[in-house]
Amino acid sequence: MTDDTAVPEREASAPMRWNGWGDPAKARSLPAALRALLPLKLGRIRPPEPAAALEDVELAPSALEGAAGEALRDELAAIVGATHVRTEREARIRHAGGKSTPDLLRRRATRQDAPDAVVTPASDAEVAAILRLAAEHGIAVVPFGGGTTVVGGVDPIAGGRRAVISLDLARMSGLVSLDELSGEATLLAGTTGPDAEAALAARGFELGHYPQSFLYATIGGFAATRSSGQSSAGHGRFDAMVTGLRVVTPTGELDLGRAPGSAAGPDLVRLFLGSEGALGVITAVRVRVHPVPAVRLADAWRFPDFATGADALRRLAQLGTGATVIRLSDEAETSVSLAQHGKIGKAFGSGCSAVTLFEGEAEITAERRERTAAVLTAAGGTRLGEQPALEWERGRFNAPYLRDALLDAGVFLETLETATTWSNLQALKAAVTEAITAGLAEEGAKSLVLCHISHVYPTGASLYFTIAAGLRGDQLAAWARAKASVNDVILAHSGTITHHHAIGRDHQPWLEREIGEVGIRVLRAVKAELDPAGILNPGVLIADSPGMLIADGAAGQHG
Amino acid sequence: MTDDTAVPEREASAPMRWNGWGDPAKARSLPAALRALLPLKLGRIRPPEPAAALEDVELAPSALEGAAGEALRDELAAIVGATHVRTEREARIRHAGGKSTPDLLRRRATRQDAPDAVVTPASDAEVAAILRLAAEHGIAVVPFGGGTTVVGGVDPIAGGRRAVISLDLARMSGLVSLDELSGEATLLAGTTGPDAEAALAARGFELGHYPQSFLYATIGGFAATRSSGQSSAGHGRFDAMVTGLRVVTPTGELDLGRAPGSAAGPDLVRLFLGSEGALGVITAVRVRVHPVPAVRLADAWRFPDFATGADALRRLAQLGTGATVIRLSDEAETSVSLAQHGKIGKAFGSGCSAVTLFEGEAEITAERRERTAAVLTAAGGTRLGEQPALEWERGRFNAPYLRDALLDAGVFLETLETATTWSNLQALKAAVTEAITAGLAEEGAKSLVLCHISHVYPTGASLYFTIAAGLRGDQLAAWARAKASVNDVILAHSGTITHHHAIGRDHQPWLEREIGEVGIRVLRAVKAELDPAGILNPGVLIADSPGMLIADGAAGQHG
Repeated sequence: MTDDTAVPEREASAPMRWNGWGDPAKARSLPAALRALLPLKLGRIRPPEPAAALEDVELAPSALEGAAGEALRDELAAIVGATHVRTEREARIRHAGGKSTPDLLRRRATRQDAPDAVVTPASDAEVAAILRLAAEHGIAVVPFGGGTTVVGGVDPIAGGRRAVISLDLARMSGLVSLDELSGEATLLAGTTGPDAEAALAARGFELGHYPQSFLYATIGGFAATRSSGQSSAGHGRFDAMVTGLRVVTPTGELDLGRAPGSAAGPDLVRLFLGSEGALGVITAVRVRVHPVPAVRLADAWRFPDFATGADALRRLAQLGTGATVIRLSDEAETSVSLAQHGKIGKAFGSGCSAVTLFEGEAEITAERRERTAAVLTAAGGTRLGEQPALEWERGRFNAPYLRDALLDAGVFLETLETATTWSNLQALKAAVTEAITAGLAEEGAKSLVLCHISHVYPTGASLYFTIAAGLRGDQLAAWARAKASVNDVILAHSGTITHHHAIGRDHQPWLEREIGEVGIRVLRAVKAELDPAGILNPGVLIADSPGMLIADGAAGQHG
Repeated sequence: MTDDTAVPEREASAPMRWNGWGDPAKARSLPAALRALLPLKLGRIRPPEPAAALEDVELAPSALEGAAGEALRDELAAIVGATHVRTEREARIRHAGGKSTPDLLRRRATRQDAPDAVVTPASDAEVAAILRLAAEHGIAVVPFGGGTTVVGGVDPIAGGRRAVISLDLARMSGLVSLDELSGEATLLAGTTGPDAEAALAARGFELGHYPQSFLYATIGGFAATRSSGQSSAGHGRFDAMVTGLRVVTPTGELDLGRAPGSAAGPDLVRLFLGSEGALGVITAVRVRVHPVPAVRLADAWRFPDFATGADALRRLAQLGTGATVIRLSDEAETSVSLAQHGKIGKAFGSGCSAVTLFEGEAEITAERRERTAAVLTAAGGTRLGEQPALEWERGRFNAPYLRDALLDAGVFLETLETATTWSNLQALKAAVTEAITAGLAEEGAKSLVLCHISHVYPTGASLYFTIAAGLRGDQLAAWARAKASVNDVILAHSGTITHHHAIGRDHQPWLEREIGEVGIRVLRAVKAELDPAGILNPGVLIADSPGMLIADGAAGQHG
């Protein structure tokens, strides 16, 4: 393995493009192979109206300006300092939403919604003071990490409240402590993926959480959304890495996760993982870390078809052969080489491609690789050597750049994901593929549906779909209708409404079918207890109803 | 390995001794070696007053008898049938408490507390109807599985309510379904460990959860208390095995755990794991299972001292070498051979003994054994062969029988446990040992404090203490004082108040120091929502205050 791939990218990222993904310097045009392929698959594509330039975007005036607003703004400034309460246009626009395709389409318009202010606290005490002030004055607070949500998790929704502020945790960044013997690190919530890994690498450790949003997303965001990284086979979902949390709520603070194994009542850490800013603001996370791997080994594989490949992955997951990364592209994804960034759109050949990566101490890692290879070979796989696997690894954070190029060309591109048991996997995949295709056809669009498995468990796996469609007219409305029908199908076929993108506002109407009416009541009860004024991320997880929340809160305050 | 140890004991267990542990036919006298050793360590021991015979035990009349009681009893009988509402003495006495040493001391008295009736439902619908009836009439309901709690989890506490019933889940037993491909089984909550394993073994599968209470405890109890089994290194705590739960509450039912990986909001399964019957009645559990292992391999080890041994275990846990069982006795426990049932009390030699067990497919299991052995050898361990490990395995469910023999001889014997990070392990062990010794000395008793690690995690481990003491006079009161001071020390030294015994009523006063005031408020809010009348297991997890709970419940009902 060459040196430049031996360690994942760790340099700090350039500021995020305001109306697209990532480093503006890395924006790319559409690969020629794909440009040739798409009209064949999707029909004639028309480029969209030109996107609005930053200086042309129109926002409603901030509610924190003008006579009444200034007083509030002064109170916020008294907590964090005047420079950390920003109401200027660009700051507001940069906190106007996440990075789903609908978000990016909305960023193309001239008229946009945005929070009334961006507030950047520097400590738990400042967060607590902001929340108390917001509760007192009825200001909605939207916690903001990297802003990479694709489910509407940071939409600036005031919901009838006096104002909505984006609570950006960027100043609460860094490694607080590292227990090298126990392999535990405490990181502030606003630390980005690269910053966390850089700080740990300086001490010889790694967290090893690499979701596609890695370069921009934050530790607090990973926790709040139950993120899953590409190395989940080896290091587990982010859930599994978290050993403790610090959470600030409008009515008090929590310091959870006392010991690595505990039976001291329900594990409340798990109640705040996935709380998406609706129950409290996660301000620090204690995570399991491991020494920077001595070696990294890789293999690419070909399977005759997806069913054979999936069954091979099932065997790996159930035997626990110790791969760090396990992923399998279906025939459609393989045919356009989506998993090999330099070759996207070029034919890969027949069957399905898969990737396994291994990391750790030299001997045990080599052993795991060979044990894994033996299982995959016995299950019908053909070993292709390490090059295609390294090619996948090199491009693994780049897919969102491709989306921007496609949107510019008028091709609608979006992803969605679910998970289920091994026994239900093929049926769910077929049902979702059919629902996407049919839903988009109803909107008059041909589509290309690609799928991969990127997270495996002993009892099941995730399914991640990439959808390209020749949607014309109002893409936002068309996709909303198609996505709704897909959500219904996922739940009707025993899938989860989300494996790692979270609920946000986009999936909220489907959560009750996932956890039941009693489950929703439990979440509402916890929110009413911790956030009686209902100011935290309104509409995320549970439907927003300010009046009821305030009434509940007043009745429920016995703390 | 000989055949008779190749598969853990699976036959159904004989009915539990009413005032001691286990099968009355297996009661044993004190091993001669121990009988000789104890006076040397603990001073002169006086045998206690003879224990009351079952027929001499006096109970208060059942509140479900007599004019007012009969009406209620009829309503319960209308739900489950008259034969399943038992108010006879023996049924009540057999549900009078758990199996902690204080429980057993209380069972020796003539005058005892007991629930007013034992009700045995056969379905979720019956459980739901009982809870609604109990809420309406203000009857406390104590869910009862195997009755093996050692933290007061099934104490019959009416707390000023009209009556208290024991809700015994024994009739809700059995394997509901098995998904062989996904390795998932659904078991009814009242299924005992041996019954669950027998049903699974008939299909070629194993759950692999073997806590010391295995022969009597139930699947529902494992879930409600966050149990940890001896194979936790390989199969995880019971928490980690659970993929879904069915929970019946007084105000509705939950069916949780839709997919093996999900980010659909907080994982509510984890809110009911460890809920100890205070938030709802767990009626069915979906668990991860695996094929019955093809081979089982074992090794015993000696380390020069506990610190060296613990550091070796840390390396195993952090490397993930794949042992199914990992445990290490400290010098004191090793010196009396407590981990070798046939040799208890006999000298083992110097240093610390350890056990590793491996299970699974032949090749991978042999590989894991040798990888583990290499790490332990490099870390200072001496391999002793498999015999002492098999001896540990043979006796692993028998320690509670020994306790009965000791109590009969007048020796107080109890256990307690905690967990912490690797970096804090030695300090916590020293502090707890000192607190136990000092606390008992204050009660005028010499003591013997033995310790082992039986559950390891990448970031830390459990500490399990066995305490023998020459307590005289009121052993119950003396132990309560000593245990309270130990609990304080555990929390002051960053341990968890319990690694796997749970909170129950005994640890409840310490839970707030573990999860904070806001954590307690979260639990109270969930309870008020689901159990507004406060009938479920009063005093477990959170302090009982019927008046406040009822008031909260009335205000909080928005479902």
